[in-house]
Amino acid sequence: MRFHHAGIATDDAAGLAERYGELFDAPLVHQEAVDGMEVLFLDLDGAYFELLEPHEPGPIESYLDSHGPGIHHLALETDDIDAALSTARECGVELIDDEPRPGAWGHEVAFLHPKSTGGVLVEFVTHG
Amino acid sequence: MRFHHAGIATDDAAGLAERYGELFDAPLVHQEAVDGMEVLFLDLDGAYFELLEPHEPGPIESYLDSHGPGIHHLALETDDIDAALSTARECGVELIDDEPRPGAWGHEVAFLHPKSTGGVLVEFVTHG
Repeated sequence: MRFHHAGIATDDAAGLAERYGELFDAPLVHQEAVDGMEVLFLDLDGAYFELLEPHEPGPIESYLDSHGPGIHHLALETDDIDAALSTARECGVELIDDEPRPGAWGHEVAFLHPKSTGGVLVEFVTHG
Repeated sequence: MRFHHAGIATDDAAGLAERYGELFDAPLVHQEAVDGMEVLFLDLDGAYFELLEPHEPGPIESYLDSHGPGIHHLALETDDIDAALSTARECGVELIDDEPRPGAWGHEVAFLHPKSTGGVLVEFVTHG
């Protein structure tokens, strides 16, 4: 699989995008409101930082309440998300999403439970 | 800059490398003992997961003690790490490393304090 993005929980996506733009030369390439969040993608030469600012209660707001801002998940791109989920099931991985669901930027996404992946929340992502 | 790797703290790097190999088709491409840690790099099509297993007290052991296993940092590759650190200083970023220092895999590395980068521990990395 190919590394696709790191998801970062924040209470100020616009401010963080500006800071990362200055520090990392990471231009904003996509922005949308989805699932009660403002979602910004910053380009890092083909991989991305995905900044996630919640506008209503949900997993990112809960994460911010318990952990504060920071790295939320890592996303890996696959051409065949159904096969990737099948492999995960065969390996005994607990799935958060049994089936792919629509994510930001037209992606199909599915999350694996971090207890099955060394404490890392992993997202499979594919272009829908 | 280019996304280079996600650093993942673990108490079982070999086991996690095997699991990630099965789940993500992420081959082990480098392994060494450095700074009191076993460090394994798994290839994700040009970016990497860096698995960090401490063998003696240090920041990764402290991280495991306080957070448990999981994502520790995100690393961005630059051709000019001195210029990147100068930009960070000009932006008022608190630096953990004022100057680049040797890291794993022959890299020169420098870390930025997460309080200056939205709660994310960021590493600049360059090939030494």
